[in-house]
Amino acid sequence: MHLDRVFRALGDPTRRAVVSRLTAGPTAVSELARGSKMALPSFTQHLDVLERCGLVRSRKVGRVRTYRLVPQPLKTAERWMAQQRALWERRLDQLDSYLLELKEETK
Amino acid sequence: MHLDRVFRALGDPTRRAVVSRLTAGPTAVSELARGSKMALPSFTQHLDVLERCGLVRSRKVGRVRTYRLVPQPLKTAERWMAQQRALWERRLDQLDSYLLELKEETK
Repeated sequence: MHLDRVFRALGDPTRRAVVSRLTAGPTAVSELARGSKMALPSFTQHLDVLERCGLVRSRKVGRVRTYRLVPQPLKTAERWMAQQRALWERRLDQLDSYLLELKEETK
Repeated sequence: MHLDRVFRALGDPTRRAVVSRLTAGPTAVSELARGSKMALPSFTQHLDVLERCGLVRSRKVGRVRTYRLVPQPLKTAERWMAQQRALWERRLDQLDSYLLELKEETK
């Protein structure tokens, strides 16, 4: 499932740093790699993981490969979290009303 | 880092289903396992992953172990995503104003 790969891709600090970096706009691999202390082949593997799950897309022009962020998967993941929070908060509200009722009854 | 483990824990459909289930309130293992077609030992491993990253907490009373959701890690992960979206949207706004300026200049 799509969310599986997106969440797993985000479970790594190097990959999250790339995502953050790309919010500022498309960036060349060399530029992205400069921010990391990793060897280029390892760094490239992280970019591959991000591209396979759809979080980024790359394009090669001449000898320069440039990455850009694809916001949709991030939005889908964020929505899943927001849904859980909404369910959780609704439950707290229900507990709250229940406690208020109990209080009223014991008055 | 904390976010690493939280995102990786969420990168699995069984574990996400447990999180969703627990938004409705604390639930016993047997009850949680009923929703899954997995053997109990495998299912328990998923619960362990969730507990180790702090997304859930368990308590044993007599012979019954009950799990509950801990909302803080979910909130932290959601906040990270919201930050990326905000940065991304700010960039789009800037692009937008830039294009408008260009249009004005070429009028």
